[in-house]
Amino acid sequence: MTALHEKTALTIATEVASGHTTARQVIEATLARIDAVNPRIGAFTDVTHARALAKADALDAAARQGGAAGRLAGVPFAVKNLFDLEGVTTRAGSRINRDHPAAARDSTLVEKLEGAGAICVGALNMGEYAYDFTGENIHDGPSRNPHDLTRMTGGSSGGSGGAVAAGLVPISLGSDTNGSIRVPASLCGLFGLKPTYGRLSRARTFPFVASLDHLGPLARSVADLALSYDVMQGEDPDDPALAPRPVELTSSGLGQGARGLRIAAAGGYFADKAEPHALAAVRHCAEALGATRTVQIPEAHRARAAAFVITTTEGAALHLERLKTRPQDFDPAVRDRLLAGAMIPAAWVNQAHKFRRWFKVEVAKLFESVDVILAPATPCSAPKLGQTTMVLGGETLNVRANMGLFTQPISFIGLPVVAVPVWRDGAMPIGVQVIGPAWREDIVLRVAAALEAAGVCGAPVADVDFASPV
Amino acid sequence: MTALHEKTALTIATEVASGHTTARQVIEATLARIDAVNPRIGAFTDVTHARALAKADALDAAARQGGAAGRLAGVPFAVKNLFDLEGVTTRAGSRINRDHPAAARDSTLVEKLEGAGAICVGALNMGEYAYDFTGENIHDGPSRNPHDLTRMTGGSSGGSGGAVAAGLVPISLGSDTNGSIRVPASLCGLFGLKPTYGRLSRARTFPFVASLDHLGPLARSVADLALSYDVMQGEDPDDPALAPRPVELTSSGLGQGARGLRIAAAGGYFADKAEPHALAAVRHCAEALGATRTVQIPEAHRARAAAFVITTTEGAALHLERLKTRPQDFDPAVRDRLLAGAMIPAAWVNQAHKFRRWFKVEVAKLFESVDVILAPATPCSAPKLGQTTMVLGGETLNVRANMGLFTQPISFIGLPVVAVPVWRDGAMPIGVQVIGPAWREDIVLRVAAALEAAGVCGAPVADVDFASPV
Repeated sequence: MTALHEKTALTIATEVASGHTTARQVIEATLARIDAVNPRIGAFTDVTHARALAKADALDAAARQGGAAGRLAGVPFAVKNLFDLEGVTTRAGSRINRDHPAAARDSTLVEKLEGAGAICVGALNMGEYAYDFTGENIHDGPSRNPHDLTRMTGGSSGGSGGAVAAGLVPISLGSDTNGSIRVPASLCGLFGLKPTYGRLSRARTFPFVASLDHLGPLARSVADLALSYDVMQGEDPDDPALAPRPVELTSSGLGQGARGLRIAAAGGYFADKAEPHALAAVRHCAEALGATRTVQIPEAHRARAAAFVITTTEGAALHLERLKTRPQDFDPAVRDRLLAGAMIPAAWVNQAHKFRRWFKVEVAKLFESVDVILAPATPCSAPKLGQTTMVLGGETLNVRANMGLFTQPISFIGLPVVAVPVWRDGAMPIGVQVIGPAWREDIVLRVAAALEAAGVCGAPVADVDFASPV
Repeated sequence: MTALHEKTALTIATEVASGHTTARQVIEATLARIDAVNPRIGAFTDVTHARALAKADALDAAARQGGAAGRLAGVPFAVKNLFDLEGVTTRAGSRINRDHPAAARDSTLVEKLEGAGAICVGALNMGEYAYDFTGENIHDGPSRNPHDLTRMTGGSSGGSGGAVAAGLVPISLGSDTNGSIRVPASLCGLFGLKPTYGRLSRARTFPFVASLDHLGPLARSVADLALSYDVMQGEDPDDPALAPRPVELTSSGLGQGARGLRIAAAGGYFADKAEPHALAAVRHCAEALGATRTVQIPEAHRARAAAFVITTTEGAALHLERLKTRPQDFDPAVRDRLLAGAMIPAAWVNQAHKFRRWFKVEVAKLFESVDVILAPATPCSAPKLGQTTMVLGGETLNVRANMGLFTQPISFIGLPVVAVPVWRDGAMPIGVQVIGPAWREDIVLRVAAALEAAGVCGAPVADVDFASPV
């Protein structure tokens, strides 16, 4: 029998809905495992025991009275600590925001998941103010990779990666501005979905870069990813950036697989500065899909540069008052980049936005002859915690700035991506980006499901090492 | 009998349509007057004799074959030299752009006016790259105020003001980023319309600040203003910034006047730093309309500051390459402000845009209890050419930067405005802004028409002084 912590959300929901188990039992076991495992991996910053048990009891009571079970009945989940949770102070990974009052209302996505029967069990560790690719947090300690506790989870949604990889929850939510869902999915060996920009509500979450912020789920199966995504879709008057789109359910269409889709690997920039096993992972996926084409995404290096400029300047604008009044309370690694951003000339940002419009049009043209593009999610597997440099293509590069090398140009124009985890014997996992045209989450989820079905990728629960000191 | 140069566009179109005169006669007389008067006032930089006569002949030929006359049949007009005119190099007031090839196609607004039978007779002087409130141009010489040749027309649409005030054309087109239609309308004693942001196509014109640029007409009667505006409305796939709005014709509704409208004068910021006769002009208009209320537009000084920040940084981004490679070919007064703009931190611009969203909402709330707000168009009448400082509210201020004191906060949020000219015995005219809520050009034109009908404002042709040396 599969242990609870290895079960998918779909399985848990089926078992709760059928009365095979109760939400209370699921949540109690979940909380016990979090309490036991979390000290090793630092994934949670807030565990909402009382709230979760109360919701579980309410769900069980409703079921006893014959109420229909939601699609995620009794499924535990957790959220990056930039999502508002009623009664919890939204940290956004910072020390400064701990002075804020507790949130008065849940963020929209939490409301939507709980509206389908899921139960939030807490808030997750993250890089300060989401300006991070490592998962290391100077205030809360690092998120540790459950597959190797001496390694990074990746960031900034580090706890979102760690919690799901360690089997503490089957689903977590993260945010992705430049790669912050896809990088931890890659380093922790998980599936991660960064939907199209404007698709999911950002209401009542702590922002980073308004024109680049996306929210999305991480999970250990494509079905769970699609199901949670489907539940979170839909209108929200509280988010002015939400694009008015019809809800297009994806979870029922996964079985179609990749049939009939034109799939290509990204060459040029996306094959340069990647370690051999990152490229091998892309090659494995392409082969399994019968894809032989390569496409060139033009000027991807400029897209990354422009994403940097927009990120650091919008981030600096958001934090300007805090930078002036409480500089000593920032992580120096975050503060110094924001201060630099506060001095970048606006004329550069105008050029970056101008280039962005051009790039969006050019990449849209590429998608006239191809349905899906494959690219590495990260240039390498999880670095060691504390590691500051790495060698890529013969060049020594800063880890913090370069883990997003391949994710930044894609989120820059808001395209939907599923990061799928590829494993090699005995080595740490690495992710491959399955990239689609705007608003086609259905396609990228179908391709991810085909790769999962073919056994090319998958997301086993980590065998957390309780012996070694951390 | 009224001389041609004193006739309105409506009168000319009626006379041409009825066969009372021909387009050829109108255009020949117009060109002759331009050739005689323009050397005194420097309004035109390009007179398109051949093109205008050919169009006139074509119009007359079509009429002889029984074709229906357009609503602006045979009406001469001219455009600020940032509008593309086929066969003419678009200068945008600069020296640098003279190296560009001649435009291959007319700008959309020229096509629309000519589509209604109007005939373009040339391009008009303007402040370099539209970054100007004086009408002085270092390359082409200053636009001179036809009512006093030693005074400024105001800018940057200086020639657009001078040409209409001198009776060279009944209608001209200008652009208004921070006040560049309303300031010359005020200083030259004309009606000027700055429509709602996104209302009229900017296709094939040389930009200044994409998020603030508006195009619109100047005229000597409200009926002409409304008629030309009506002709220029409508969709244009060539301008992505054009808001998809139904065409709402205004010229037939002018007779409704101001009946039933709630009208207030702007207090606070808009009554400070204005010369007494600017405030008297607002008071005269308010009294004629029976308006006794005063409203406070909140944080107008911040709106102006934010408009400055956005203007100079977007302008700098547009001209960055030219600033690097041809600094010596700019007017120093323009170059130095653009260079300063090239170094303003992007974080400030983000704050400016954030404030702009707040301000737009707050002013929209004001318009729930009032239909029209009156405010001075300029703090004073036309300064002397070459004058660099003026005293306002006891403070010595730079002329160039401060003529837009009262126009900048309004265009900042794209509201429609008609500037109406008020005259006092023997003194130079001064304009009053009739400001409406977004998309309500109909209302501001009706109020302007009511003021014109009441004799509070009007736009006589200047008696150009041919005796004094210029």
